[in-house]
Amino acid sequence: MIHQDAYPVEEWALRETRLDLGLLAQAESLFALSNGHLGLRGNLDEGEPYGAPGTYLNSFHELRSLPYAEAGYGYPEDGQSIVNVTNGKLIRVLIDDEPFDVRYGDLHDHQRWLDLRTGVLYRSADWTSPSGARIRLRSRRIVSLTQRSIAAIRLEIEPVDANVQVVVQSELVANEDQPARSGDPRVAAQLQAPLVAEDAFVHDLRVTLLHATRRSGLRMAAAMDHEVDGPPGTTSRVEAGGDLGRVTVVAHLDPGERLRLTKYLAYGWSARRSPAAVRDQVEAALTAARSGGWKGLLAEQADALANFWDRADVQVDGDPELQQAVRFALFQVHCASTRAERRPVPAKGLTGTGYDGHCFWDTETFLLPVLTYTTPHAAADELRWRESCLPQARDRAANLGLRGAAFPWRTITGAECSAYWPGGTAAFHINADIADAVVRYIKATGDEEFARTTGLAILVETARLWSCLGHHDNDGAFRIDGVTGPDEYSAVADNNVFTNLMAQHNLRAAAATAERHGHAAAELGVTAAEIAAWWWAADTVLIPFDDELGVHPQAENFTRHDRLDFTTLPDDPYPLLLHVPYFDLYRKQVVKQADLVLAMHLRGHAFDPDQKRRNFDYYEELTVRDSSLSAATQAVLAAEVGHLDLALDYAAEAALMDLRDLGHNTRDGLHLASLAGTWLALVAGFGGLRDHGEHLAFAPRLPSGLRGLGFSLLYRGARLRVEIGPEAAAYTVLDEERGIELTHHGEVLYVGPKQTVTRQIPVIAEQPTPRQPPGRAPQRRTAR
Amino acid sequence: MIHQDAYPVEEWALRETRLDLGLLAQAESLFALSNGHLGLRGNLDEGEPYGAPGTYLNSFHELRSLPYAEAGYGYPEDGQSIVNVTNGKLIRVLIDDEPFDVRYGDLHDHQRWLDLRTGVLYRSADWTSPSGARIRLRSRRIVSLTQRSIAAIRLEIEPVDANVQVVVQSELVANEDQPARSGDPRVAAQLQAPLVAEDAFVHDLRVTLLHATRRSGLRMAAAMDHEVDGPPGTTSRVEAGGDLGRVTVVAHLDPGERLRLTKYLAYGWSARRSPAAVRDQVEAALTAARSGGWKGLLAEQADALANFWDRADVQVDGDPELQQAVRFALFQVHCASTRAERRPVPAKGLTGTGYDGHCFWDTETFLLPVLTYTTPHAAADELRWRESCLPQARDRAANLGLRGAAFPWRTITGAECSAYWPGGTAAFHINADIADAVVRYIKATGDEEFARTTGLAILVETARLWSCLGHHDNDGAFRIDGVTGPDEYSAVADNNVFTNLMAQHNLRAAAATAERHGHAAAELGVTAAEIAAWWWAADTVLIPFDDELGVHPQAENFTRHDRLDFTTLPDDPYPLLLHVPYFDLYRKQVVKQADLVLAMHLRGHAFDPDQKRRNFDYYEELTVRDSSLSAATQAVLAAEVGHLDLALDYAAEAALMDLRDLGHNTRDGLHLASLAGTWLALVAGFGGLRDHGEHLAFAPRLPSGLRGLGFSLLYRGARLRVEIGPEAAAYTVLDEERGIELTHHGEVLYVGPKQTVTRQIPVIAEQPTPRQPPGRAPQRRTAR
Repeated sequence: MIHQDAYPVEEWALRETRLDLGLLAQAESLFALSNGHLGLRGNLDEGEPYGAPGTYLNSFHELRSLPYAEAGYGYPEDGQSIVNVTNGKLIRVLIDDEPFDVRYGDLHDHQRWLDLRTGVLYRSADWTSPSGARIRLRSRRIVSLTQRSIAAIRLEIEPVDANVQVVVQSELVANEDQPARSGDPRVAAQLQAPLVAEDAFVHDLRVTLLHATRRSGLRMAAAMDHEVDGPPGTTSRVEAGGDLGRVTVVAHLDPGERLRLTKYLAYGWSARRSPAAVRDQVEAALTAARSGGWKGLLAEQADALANFWDRADVQVDGDPELQQAVRFALFQVHCASTRAERRPVPAKGLTGTGYDGHCFWDTETFLLPVLTYTTPHAAADELRWRESCLPQARDRAANLGLRGAAFPWRTITGAECSAYWPGGTAAFHINADIADAVVRYIKATGDEEFARTTGLAILVETARLWSCLGHHDNDGAFRIDGVTGPDEYSAVADNNVFTNLMAQHNLRAAAATAERHGHAAAELGVTAAEIAAWWWAADTVLIPFDDELGVHPQAENFTRHDRLDFTTLPDDPYPLLLHVPYFDLYRKQVVKQADLVLAMHLRGHAFDPDQKRRNFDYYEELTVRDSSLSAATQAVLAAEVGHLDLALDYAAEAALMDLRDLGHNTRDGLHLASLAGTWLALVAGFGGLRDHGEHLAFAPRLPSGLRGLGFSLLYRGARLRVEIGPEAAAYTVLDEERGIELTHHGEVLYVGPKQTVTRQIPVIAEQPTPRQPPGRAPQRRTAR
Repeated sequence: MIHQDAYPVEEWALRETRLDLGLLAQAESLFALSNGHLGLRGNLDEGEPYGAPGTYLNSFHELRSLPYAEAGYGYPEDGQSIVNVTNGKLIRVLIDDEPFDVRYGDLHDHQRWLDLRTGVLYRSADWTSPSGARIRLRSRRIVSLTQRSIAAIRLEIEPVDANVQVVVQSELVANEDQPARSGDPRVAAQLQAPLVAEDAFVHDLRVTLLHATRRSGLRMAAAMDHEVDGPPGTTSRVEAGGDLGRVTVVAHLDPGERLRLTKYLAYGWSARRSPAAVRDQVEAALTAARSGGWKGLLAEQADALANFWDRADVQVDGDPELQQAVRFALFQVHCASTRAERRPVPAKGLTGTGYDGHCFWDTETFLLPVLTYTTPHAAADELRWRESCLPQARDRAANLGLRGAAFPWRTITGAECSAYWPGGTAAFHINADIADAVVRYIKATGDEEFARTTGLAILVETARLWSCLGHHDNDGAFRIDGVTGPDEYSAVADNNVFTNLMAQHNLRAAAATAERHGHAAAELGVTAAEIAAWWWAADTVLIPFDDELGVHPQAENFTRHDRLDFTTLPDDPYPLLLHVPYFDLYRKQVVKQADLVLAMHLRGHAFDPDQKRRNFDYYEELTVRDSSLSAATQAVLAAEVGHLDLALDYAAEAALMDLRDLGHNTRDGLHLASLAGTWLALVAGFGGLRDHGEHLAFAPRLPSGLRGLGFSLLYRGARLRVEIGPEAAAYTVLDEERGIELTHHGEVLYVGPKQTVTRQIPVIAEQPTPRQPPGRAPQRRTAR
């Protein structure tokens, strides 16, 4: 846990006011910078101490054999792990021959802050060395959002009260030591010395190192160049070879004098290009970056972010902490994806090695709704990445004896890396989740060219999978047996409601899109009979219901299962997976994360309001939220069924997952889905945004803890601004030409160009708050 | 596959008439000798060529870490593997300095035969060396059934037509090379050089080697002593150290002269005793064996087997191959268990390293019925071994959050070694299977002292497990959700009928036995309330039934699942587990091995005759028999419901599993459960033996392919002889004092001491033969 005083609330920054070595690893994740291609953990400039050093290039990975004590047909042979690549952010500093190391000497003051408007990570330190030399050190660091290969650091050192000799070693270091692996299976496999040195190049103060991986056959280059600004007599030397590139600057500084080092970094990798080509690519990027210079990079960065905030900012009135959290969340979601460009956005972005750097369904189900309405090009790119993985997904399906495409549960390259099939391969819902993201993107953008190409290709192949995974029973019902839904504390069950409803949506979307783009569909071999089969399957899909209890069982028989006996467990038994075997979790009514409740969000039309209320309360008692994917969805549904204050509790839990380290694993990287979930909790929760009907739908309603909520959306090329107050909501179309048809609590409204329409919010009686499992009531946001 | 001509049919022997190097590994399993403590594969005396060398001591194992790519709570950390211990059967022979090796020179004649009445493995070879020296070599080998540490070999060599120099190296060799591991997960993990040499001792022609394992901390000794009988001038030398002990005999033989070497072997191991103690123990056994000498050992062996055959022989009239097979089966089952003495009987006995030498539920469900009625002391010993594992089973249950005892799915020492929980830990039925074996043993022997001690301890702890694994739902039904039944192509299902019926039996037996032995039960903490809960759970256990189809689903929803589409599979897709992923097998109506059908055998009273017929035919279409545990059970039920010829087909399949290598893995060791199943198919199938009612029940009925069937049983200390003809059956009690009450096709009969009672067999109309999955109709035994 991180207490609030570590990061005081600010509107537009995340500020750390003192250095707590116990929270170093968490801070490295929080202060990570990324653009979707390159990611730097927020390590101290001087490299040590660290929680985990981290420099990542999207999709640059190594393979490792997956061990099985008892193997089985169709088990993936190789796993993939994101590689900690050559560290270019390292700048060691010696003061009078003593290393600048915050663990020694006296640290009078240490601050770091991430400016969410400019995208710059600031640091300032006031330090006296063990031998008594006092300096001030300032650094600024960016990972460029406009030049995707580029990061840059500016470091300034000045003595406080006496002359000092300063030696600065600006380095590129490959194969850094990694901290020992934890016993927690979720922590990434460590790869010791994954990089093989291929070549090193030096020119002036520029160093380029080329490395390759052993098994995956990938090649990368890291290059650094420098501008040195110091008093007369300042000297620089350069050296490079193997795993080390180093520029050493020596300066003698009197009080009032300053040494300033500007370090430009460029990274690139390729699976195919020659060493020379990869080298040239990064050196070109470096030269381009230097031509604009430090100020140019900063200006571009601020412009890009201003543009982003202009279209995507969410204003929260009445809860400054939540205001800060949602901006931090939007910043990180944006930075993780904006330049990913047909590469995956991993569950932890490029902020740590958690989950081996793999991408899961989180991306489509939690990130892509946010991106679709704020940065649609990034949503499209992500889906184009999935499309590029279709050949592997088709192979996987064929290998499993299925038709169509079976997208991987976890992957970097598109190949399945899950070594535990009940929780991986069997979770076929990922295919419908991807299809759902396709449908949402098409609907929100009206991009029919995308629909005809990428969209149709994905929809058709996933629909084929479903029509093969399910079958019509003797009564004609379309059953999908023996699969795993979102709740990872259940597995291999029959007719999981979420899966069946999402598959229905997928089948219908494939059929409708294929009918709309008949020629393109025919090229994919789609026949009228196939389309008819999709419609039929969708129309007859089995949705189990427990008449006795009046609720939907998460899957067939679920509501007949025993409940977990918490009295036999330790006092704080969460996450349960560390105390209870899967076999027991699976057969009990205990839910790790929203599953049926997520179905009620994404496929809300399939439930009537009474069912939603009863279902929500029923599952609330069972859901332990051992996954960070849960709170946001619970917020959305809590708001819908009238538990508004509970919804705010959950929104805050999603929002503070990383800022307060609620899951105790922020050290391994940020929880991007939970960050995206913050937006969902606010916009889909209190804004009531739904996009599964004919119109973009809103049903705004604020909890007692908020005075106002404002957000913007991009919809079919127009910007829509929504301002919600306690009693009314205002919808403004900012576009000059286009209007938007939407619904407000079911009433259809047309909001014309540059027009604002205001509507009252119907009153809803706050419902009796349901109960959560022992010890799992969310922290209350407002007294009640 | 082994064709019939490799092993011609003989009544009392298994004979190999020529050496087929392609079948060497299979022959090593078939000619394996064991007494339950010590097992020797049927390797050639001279060691090479081999399929796999093998010398095993019951429970002498090494540990190895089980790897998990994705670990989980409660997964066992260590696996156990049976160790190929010091090879003492090795006797290398040089003829004029050329090694006797059947791959070189000319092998004019080579025969091996296992005499099932004397327990001696014979070999004779007529061979001309590459340089033209012709010899006759004869050997005999036994593993003593009366002196459990002892094996002995007598080797005789004589020249055929000219003087030869013969050098014989009789050896003890530790850490032999093993053949490369196959990719099949069922094949054992190879352990390279598992033994660490501790000491070596020499006295005259006696050598003793002491070794220990690295991780499991077990110590073993192997000792050999020799009698040499050759012409004058024959010399002997001895050497020993490290992994090698060797006695070298040199003789010059003229035609008509003979060198005869008698080698005595003794083996022992301990987890606790000192090196000296273990050494002394084997040397004492060796001295004892030598005191009776070779003839003494042979005479004891023949006596022991005569006694066995007298009480256990099964006579099959009309099918000589089946006659041979059932005797081979009984011989191997007897030898695997008679001296196991509170050690497990592994699935492959001590005949190979298949399944790592682990013991499964096969032992209780397939072997113990045979042992109970033929060698009851071995059945009791096996259950006492299970009792000795109760502490580990209690720990395992506690670790899994359960009460009572959870016996391991696979083990050597009693600790769970299954690394795949859906097919291991979740298969809780093993606990009821053990309880069922306890009940059967008590009923068949009337051994109330056993019931009060071992029996009660096992029944109580397993009943506690069931009462915790199941729960009463809102309607009061006792449900056991999320467990795996016998069919390994289904897993983690709700209310598996087999499991629920066996648990019911277990709960009732525990309750009844606790009531009968109130004082002993009280000492185990059993209360009246606990007993009442067991009765209640047993009386309300949920047995799903599909009213629409009129059959029992194997587990809830099973009959609603899709069927496997065989048209998409390769032509010979068996075993399916090599072509279809578990996820797909689990969710389809495809059955690896009798599950519901086994329930109808062991808990026959729970089904009416109509249900049995319909169920049998329904599951027959789904059952692919990819497990060797299936055919025997299908034989039993086929006979009961009137498919008598089909029953004979299945009886033959069970009987010939190893003799014809039907599963293509006899090389890894014999299928003891299938061998035991041969007896079950005949005695429970055509004899109709059932033991779950008040009386021992028979319902004899022969298939058209048999003219007669005779078998003996021990029941409550009396011998019962059953002779079945096409029209009548005769029951004879051979005891002088006790009579037996039994039923014949439902009619209660009392057969007094030394009395024979004959009854007609009611005619049953042969039913239309049901269908099997594509390509899985059993080989037809009789034309029809």
